[in-house]
Amino acid sequence: MAMISPSRRVRRTPFSDGVEAQGVKAYTVYNRMLLPTVFESVEYDYRHLKEAVQVWDVSVERQVELRGPDAGRLMQMLTPRDLRGMLPGQCYYVPMVDETGGMLNDPVCVKLAEDRYWVSIADSDLLLWVKGIAYGYRLDVLVDEPDVSPLAVQGPLADDLMARVFGEGVRDVRFFRFGMFDFEGNTFAVARSGYSKQGGFEIYVEGTENGMPLWNALFDAGKDLGVRAGCPNLIERIEGGLLSYGNDMTRWNTPHEAGLGKFCSTQTAIGCVGRDALLRVAKEGPVQQIRPISIDGGLPPCDRIWPIVVNGKKVGQVTSAANSPDFDTGVAIGMVRMTHWDEGTKVQVDTPDGMRDATVLEKFWI
Amino acid sequence: MAMISPSRRVRRTPFSDGVEAQGVKAYTVYNRMLLPTVFESVEYDYRHLKEAVQVWDVSVERQVELRGPDAGRLMQMLTPRDLRGMLPGQCYYVPMVDETGGMLNDPVCVKLAEDRYWVSIADSDLLLWVKGIAYGYRLDVLVDEPDVSPLAVQGPLADDLMARVFGEGVRDVRFFRFGMFDFEGNTFAVARSGYSKQGGFEIYVEGTENGMPLWNALFDAGKDLGVRAGCPNLIERIEGGLLSYGNDMTRWNTPHEAGLGKFCSTQTAIGCVGRDALLRVAKEGPVQQIRPISIDGGLPPCDRIWPIVVNGKKVGQVTSAANSPDFDTGVAIGMVRMTHWDEGTKVQVDTPDGMRDATVLEKFWI
Repeated sequence: MAMISPSRRVRRTPFSDGVEAQGVKAYTVYNRMLLPTVFESVEYDYRHLKEAVQVWDVSVERQVELRGPDAGRLMQMLTPRDLRGMLPGQCYYVPMVDETGGMLNDPVCVKLAEDRYWVSIADSDLLLWVKGIAYGYRLDVLVDEPDVSPLAVQGPLADDLMARVFGEGVRDVRFFRFGMFDFEGNTFAVARSGYSKQGGFEIYVEGTENGMPLWNALFDAGKDLGVRAGCPNLIERIEGGLLSYGNDMTRWNTPHEAGLGKFCSTQTAIGCVGRDALLRVAKEGPVQQIRPISIDGGLPPCDRIWPIVVNGKKVGQVTSAANSPDFDTGVAIGMVRMTHWDEGTKVQVDTPDGMRDATVLEKFWI
Repeated sequence: MAMISPSRRVRRTPFSDGVEAQGVKAYTVYNRMLLPTVFESVEYDYRHLKEAVQVWDVSVERQVELRGPDAGRLMQMLTPRDLRGMLPGQCYYVPMVDETGGMLNDPVCVKLAEDRYWVSIADSDLLLWVKGIAYGYRLDVLVDEPDVSPLAVQGPLADDLMARVFGEGVRDVRFFRFGMFDFEGNTFAVARSGYSKQGGFEIYVEGTENGMPLWNALFDAGKDLGVRAGCPNLIERIEGGLLSYGNDMTRWNTPHEAGLGKFCSTQTAIGCVGRDALLRVAKEGPVQQIRPISIDGGLPPCDRIWPIVVNGKKVGQVTSAANSPDFDTGVAIGMVRMTHWDEGTKVQVDTPDGMRDATVLEKFWI
């Protein structure tokens, strides 16, 4: 691995001082901001995440705020998911598409009020698309990036740690719901969500100045729980089938190819700019789709597309891969053509370390 | 410095194999792609750039292509620079603004034909803004990112090296013009431009598969010229006053604050979405503006805003800084309020290593 050069352009977060004090070893850049990727080691962090509780700086999940009388109309223009039943206090996972049905992002939408939403984005400048659409349609809506930085608390002991800092009421927050909770005079939205399968919360911390006090309070309260700084874990997220926009799907893919057809109500999502383009794929289904892939042998880091081949012909591609200690195999996410996507199909994967035998699966490992 | 984690999401370039073979030591991430920042050392690379010739992988300057009958109209909507006199074969530096006059990017626009432009972007997903505007206005234009990756050849010996590979005719390309030149059966746009003050060219390499053959040809042809792999150099670009979007100006700044008023013809740039917002600032001038700042004493890396203070009051901020061997001072770019922007004004800069004496200048060092 090479080093990452410092610059203001690659933004620090409200929690960067804490992340550095906890000995972060590597970063990626996500939404032009630092996202920690390794503290002790990917394998150590993985084990700890599954057994204890971690605090994650996921400020890179920037918010796009929509506020004003047309906020609801604009939200529906952005996604093929039908939002008519969405209530304030709910979080929806919403694939976002352009006019061709190509994915622009796969954020979590937080409905704060009938006329106010936060879109908690994956890695693309969704703000620019939303601003362009709002301007082109002359909508009565303010679109901006507020000073909000999510902090995640993940792992089996997350409820215990959170209850110590935010009170017992936090245990009652249901999955993909949020409540408003007080911390030292501020009130933050706290959602039961997060980019792991180990359970936990995401705190939408408003105000950069409130970042480190909350960070420190969580570490102080969690000493006997073995709390550590963590981050989205490559192995755990692949095992759990958590997709990564830019890795596993891009603007060239539809939500249906990404396996997100269940979040699309293309018939009734009236006003969605990609609706017409997606109607046919919604009816007939995609010709390629994301699948879990089990790969034999130790794997190198996956920093580029690995072709999936059968008899010398490309039938798909792997885009995320890691060696899983718990499942004792290479775990991977790939896009596979329908001719080879059935459970148990034997394929080969062309890695930089050579060709590997692999099996297409139907369900992720956990 | 921490390490950078590999992933497909942080894209490799057509030249990455060459960059690695030449021993790249550090990267930044720019437009979700790898941009080398250090080969030998920033200081060594700096000296070599000023004395010889370097080949730079600047694939991160992604292109946004506008093609179709409304391409010209759309281009003018994006920028306050008057484009009426622009001819095919010209390159224009075009600040791009949103409806509030806030800068979204500061790309170089390459006019390939009356109905076809490449916008060679700085670090923001300008594609999404352009697509949103085009969709909202129902313009007859295709907007996409083509498979084009710029390769820069920079330094005093750039003309000699380029003539060996593209023929003597390349010497006749004028500044910010481009010509079409052949290389092994392909024809590439070759512009006299680049992100240094040492002179040179940018080759718009179409087709990923054509990247490494050209890279290798340049290194083979330049052995006796001492050609090396290089990259935009932090020290040299600050000395030369080359701004960096995301570092020195952001969406919160107008082009006039960035000192780019000379590229704005706000009165006549009819159709520019930010025209109304910029009319007043164009007339009265900004209240803060970018200035070169000379800072005493050795400087740490500048990875965040450094406040500029006078008598305990903030009067601006430094956003890029480095130690200059040639000018024997800390060279910096900052945004300074009009009360303190006059040449020679003494200020202090609040760095992580302590308060430093500094002087506001009018002209960059070279």
